[in-house]
Amino acid sequence: MKRAVSRAIRIGLLGAGVVGQGILSLLRDNAENIERRLGAPIEVRRVVARDPSKVRAELVESAKLSFDPEDVLGDDEIDVVVEVIGGVEPAGSYVRRAIERDRSVVTANKALLAEHGHELIELAEARGVDLYFEAAVAGGVPVIRVLREAMASDTVVALRGIVNGTSNYILSRMREAGLDFEAALAEAQERGYAEADPTLDVGGGDAAHKLTILATLAFGAKVHPTQVATEGIDRVAAIDMRMAHRFGYVIKPLAVARMLEEGALDLRVHPALVPESGVLASISGALNIVTIEGAMLGPCSLSGYGAGALPTAMSVVSDIVDVGRNLVRGASGRVPQRAFRGEHLLARPVRDVGRHVGPYYLRFSVLDRPGMLARIAGVLGAFDVSIEQMVQEGRAGESDAAVQVVMLTHEAREANVRSALREIHMLSGIVSPTTALRIERG
Amino acid sequence: MKRAVSRAIRIGLLGAGVVGQGILSLLRDNAENIERRLGAPIEVRRVVARDPSKVRAELVESAKLSFDPEDVLGDDEIDVVVEVIGGVEPAGSYVRRAIERDRSVVTANKALLAEHGHELIELAEARGVDLYFEAAVAGGVPVIRVLREAMASDTVVALRGIVNGTSNYILSRMREAGLDFEAALAEAQERGYAEADPTLDVGGGDAAHKLTILATLAFGAKVHPTQVATEGIDRVAAIDMRMAHRFGYVIKPLAVARMLEEGALDLRVHPALVPESGVLASISGALNIVTIEGAMLGPCSLSGYGAGALPTAMSVVSDIVDVGRNLVRGASGRVPQRAFRGEHLLARPVRDVGRHVGPYYLRFSVLDRPGMLARIAGVLGAFDVSIEQMVQEGRAGESDAAVQVVMLTHEAREANVRSALREIHMLSGIVSPTTALRIERG
Repeated sequence: MKRAVSRAIRIGLLGAGVVGQGILSLLRDNAENIERRLGAPIEVRRVVARDPSKVRAELVESAKLSFDPEDVLGDDEIDVVVEVIGGVEPAGSYVRRAIERDRSVVTANKALLAEHGHELIELAEARGVDLYFEAAVAGGVPVIRVLREAMASDTVVALRGIVNGTSNYILSRMREAGLDFEAALAEAQERGYAEADPTLDVGGGDAAHKLTILATLAFGAKVHPTQVATEGIDRVAAIDMRMAHRFGYVIKPLAVARMLEEGALDLRVHPALVPESGVLASISGALNIVTIEGAMLGPCSLSGYGAGALPTAMSVVSDIVDVGRNLVRGASGRVPQRAFRGEHLLARPVRDVGRHVGPYYLRFSVLDRPGMLARIAGVLGAFDVSIEQMVQEGRAGESDAAVQVVMLTHEAREANVRSALREIHMLSGIVSPTTALRIERG
Repeated sequence: MKRAVSRAIRIGLLGAGVVGQGILSLLRDNAENIERRLGAPIEVRRVVARDPSKVRAELVESAKLSFDPEDVLGDDEIDVVVEVIGGVEPAGSYVRRAIERDRSVVTANKALLAEHGHELIELAEARGVDLYFEAAVAGGVPVIRVLREAMASDTVVALRGIVNGTSNYILSRMREAGLDFEAALAEAQERGYAEADPTLDVGGGDAAHKLTILATLAFGAKVHPTQVATEGIDRVAAIDMRMAHRFGYVIKPLAVARMLEEGALDLRVHPALVPESGVLASISGALNIVTIEGAMLGPCSLSGYGAGALPTAMSVVSDIVDVGRNLVRGASGRVPQRAFRGEHLLARPVRDVGRHVGPYYLRFSVLDRPGMLARIAGVLGAFDVSIEQMVQEGRAGESDAAVQVVMLTHEAREANVRSALREIHMLSGIVSPTTALRIERG
């Protein structure tokens, strides 16, 4: 049992960029409200910034500003270390040291948690301190809280979500305005939804980080981002969006984590076709959604704005209040980090995506020649991939222009689909690589 | 500071119907898991049933069964009183007595909370005990938890939701299968989604109860169900569903609570047209959704299965675990009940729905006579209600059959719409009362 803190909750802030200054301004503007909800005031004791001169003067007295993380980490009067530096190192060492010195930690650092989350979670549990990180996944959506606290009488069997707002914005614009990928990306960059280097967002890496964190909590598993089968949305063309619509689907940047019956995990981040009438399809623009599927309870979905400095800062402040409540009550470590069975995080096998079984969307660019479709269908059939629906866009007639042929398959094994596509690619009359997208009806 | 409990958490269960027995079976089947998450085992010390002989023998030893609530309320060894009797009395007296004797309470009783929630909340705060009631609103959706805990740095400005699964099921079937209201209701009853007497569900009373509870928490207001402007879904006909679709809308059983700029509350439960492409439209069948709109954060939506014995029982068990964690840590009353500013729940003015301003869907049954539309439009115009779109279904030609004319209005004041409709009703050629539905685009 910890000693209860009966004075102001003292925080040390590591990082004073946009998010850090957002936190300071929320703490200042909501001071009275927070004190009532928390039962104690919050005192910002120290702010560490790479360049203290860039921190707005009205947010923190200059005497509290520092460029040396040691001023926070070495100060035993600080109750909560708030880390918003980002990146795996040196942020990770700071967080580790703070926990080792029995300080509670609030962080928004998804890269760090994806890489070292299980280790930090176990460390925090061992020390009996709180490690909160709601802001790391879908900032405006309290999915970590729900995973950790609200599933006490159920077991999570699957997570499905849209956790990268940039990708969702781009695909939404392609759908709504008929833009192609490059135009939609350029628009996202203009509007500040995408970075100058968008690789981490559109390539799926950011979503893989977030999925890693969610899967760790949901399944009590040691998961690493490299175990997530990751595909970017840059493979989706304007025509795919149009064709998906003809079949009643929309293409969304999905993240999926499932516990399979054999105890292995299915971890995937990729663009997928989802039914137009479903909840996932309705989440457009920069919105995020996470659907938690309980063994008994069925699906529970949470959606809202995920990214941006404001949702992130607000989420961090909510965590600070919650951690503060535990300090005031001497109840740090009150909620175990994990919504799962078992003492320790377990390494679990991750199923190779080649063993995925589901329906597929296949788009072939072919010369419009007699017998072409028969040959494609023949190869698919030879690999046990059967066609449910087919549509050809346009007719080239006598010319040698390519036409687009789209097929939706029945359930098929991914390895078979890939083998078939490799063989089809060798056929004469195939003009460019085939686009293959998973269909996710669940 | 409370004394921490360092033994089993002892519960007394009031009510052993379907939900009560569901709780007992969850506690038994998940005992190991719960003990790990909670840090202590849960001991069911006493179960009070109206007819103890109807409680399944494998769920509780007969020595612990009783028909006398006093056996729970008078037992000072019990830590948590779990109330699943339902109804305002005598359940209310039991809950009140339990709190007065410093016991934490978990209840699923929405009628009780809607009628006396503010009083019980203040009593629990005064005694420093926990009063948890996640199961009272949208059982499978942790909306109470999010309202109470996750909004620490924001202010709720509006709630919108679908909180009655029966109504949503009926309207969904009308939409999908083209059923009329009576056929859809009969189907819902056959499938066990609707009671033999469906009044509370389809009339909006159940949703008004739930909205009262949500509004109390979100706005810190003393709200009573009679203050909610309530209309049932029985006024919706199959043709309305079809016409709504022609304009890109779907009709949903909505519950809305908004904090207006002048400090008054807007509280409404009614069928409304919502955009087909939005999140609300995608919530079909027995699913529930609640969208919490923060002043800064924007919308955060939670959806899942709301009703039924299993979600209710699971939700109660999650609450027991959470209350138990506080007891183990001596941290009862850790989270204030209210996500709002202010020391006490305030009585707030509720705006008369006649002052509502928004677009409307109007369906007139008229004889197909020359000048009919002009006269209707003339009356609407005289009351400042302007028409945005109009469509007439069918033509009666020379016959005297009625045709259906649907108009969507621009933003109009409800009192004006009503006055206009009263006047239109007097016109010759109007065959039956006009259907007027609010359009909710927010």
